Amino acid sequence: MDYPAPVARLIDELRRLPGVGPKSAQRIAFHLLRGAREDATRLSEAVGTLFDGIRTCASCHAITDQDECAICSDPARSAKVVCIVEEPHDLLAVEKTRDFRGRYHVLHGALSPLQGVGPDELRIQGLLDRLRSGETEEVILATSPTVEGEATAVYLARLLRPLGVRVTRIAMGVPVGSDLEWADVVTMSKALEGRREY
Amino acid sequence: MDYPAPVARLIDELRRLPGVGPKSAQRIAFHLLRGAREDATRLSEAVGTLFDGIRTCASCHAITDQDECAICSDPARSAKVVCIVEEPHDLLAVEKTRDFRGRYHVLHGALSPLQGVGPDELRIQGLLDRLRSGETEEVILATSPTVEGEATAVYLARLLRPLGVRVTRIAMGVPVGSDLEWADVVTMSKALEGRREY
Repeated sequence: MDYPAPVARLIDELRRLPGVGPKSAQRIAFHLLRGAREDATRLSEAVGTLFDGIRTCASCHAITDQDECAICSDPARSAKVVCIVEEPHDLLAVEKTRDFRGRYHVLHGALSPLQGVGPDELRIQGLLDRLRSGETEEVILATSPTVEGEATAVYLARLLRPLGVRVTRIAMGVPVGSDLEWADVVTMSKALEGRREY
Repeated sequence: MDYPAPVARLIDELRRLPGVGPKSAQRIAFHLLRGAREDATRLSEAVGTLFDGIRTCASCHAITDQDECAICSDPARSAKVVCIVEEPHDLLAVEKTRDFRGRYHVLHGALSPLQGVGPDELRIQGLLDRLRSGETEEVILATSPTVEGEATAVYLARLLRPLGVRVTRIAMGVPVGSDLEWADVVTMSKALEGRREY
C-alpha cells in the first residue's frame, strides 16, 4: 500500500531538503495533513514567494531585498574593516555577536577542487574592486574552520596581502561552555597554538 | 540586521514543522535560495496541493484519495482480522512487514486525558459498527507502546471483548538487532514477561 499521490509527492519533495530524511519527511507531511489547511497554504506561499524581490547586494553580495544591503547602506558601519564569510547565513552568525561594526563580503562558497569550485566560482572579483578603492585597512577571514574554509582563507590571504591591507583570521579553539574532555585533537591543538597572555 | 522579508517569513513557517528548529529552518531556507527556483516552486506546489482529493477512508479512516482505501477495497485482504493503529503513518509501519493480510482501523489519536483526548475524539464508533457486522474474528491492538497507546489498548480491549471478538496486543520486548545492555528496565521487563517457548 502506498500513500495517496499528493502525500507521496510532498514526502518526495521534503526529502530533498537538507537534514530531512525519509522519516522526518513523512512526519512533516502527516503533521501538515492533521493540521489546518490554512497552515499548509501559508507554508506553500512562503516557499513560493521566497525569491520575490530577493537579490544579492551589489557591493557585498549578501542577500537583500534592496539594491544595496542594509549594512552596506548604513553610514554608521565602517568600511575600514571587511569581514569575509562563505555563505549569507554565516554573516548573521557574526552579526549576532553585535561586536562587529564593519562591513561584510559574501563569497557564496568556499574553494573545493573536488567539487569543482575554484576561485572563479566565488565572488572574489568584487572584493578586489572594493579593496582597491583604498578605504579598507583590515580584512577578517571568517570562512569556516573546515578544510575548504581554511583553503579559501589561505588563498585569499595570499591574494590580498599584496594590496597592502592587514589580513586576519578568526580564532580557532575550544568553544565557550564546552568541556575540554570532548574537544577533538585538532581543535585542542589550535587552542594551544592560539594561546594568549592571561 | 534581519533577513529580507520573504526569507524571514519562510524561516518562520518552517519552524512550525515538527523536528525543525530555528537552525534547520534557516538551513533549509538558504538551501532553497541557493538552489534553482523550480525546486522551490515544486515544493510550494506539493505543499499547496497536499489536501487535493485527500480524505479518510469511509470504512477504516486511513488516508486515501478514494472513497474507500486501497486495502478496504482489496478483496484479497481478509476482514477476519482488523489491526487497530493510532495514526495513518502507523498503518504503513505494519504494512511494510508484508506479514499482515487483514484490514486496518485508524483511530486518529490515542487516549490522553491531559491533552483532552477522550474516547469521543477517536474514531471508535465506526470500529464498533464494523465489528457488529460479525465478519471480524480478531482485533489486533497495535497502538504505540506508550502510556497513551497502552491506555487506549486497555480501553478498547474492555470495550471490544463483550462483542465476542478475540482481542490481542502486539508484543513488546527488546527490538531486533539491539544490544541488551541498552534496553530500558520497562522494555526488558516486558521482554521477560512475554517470553515464549523456544
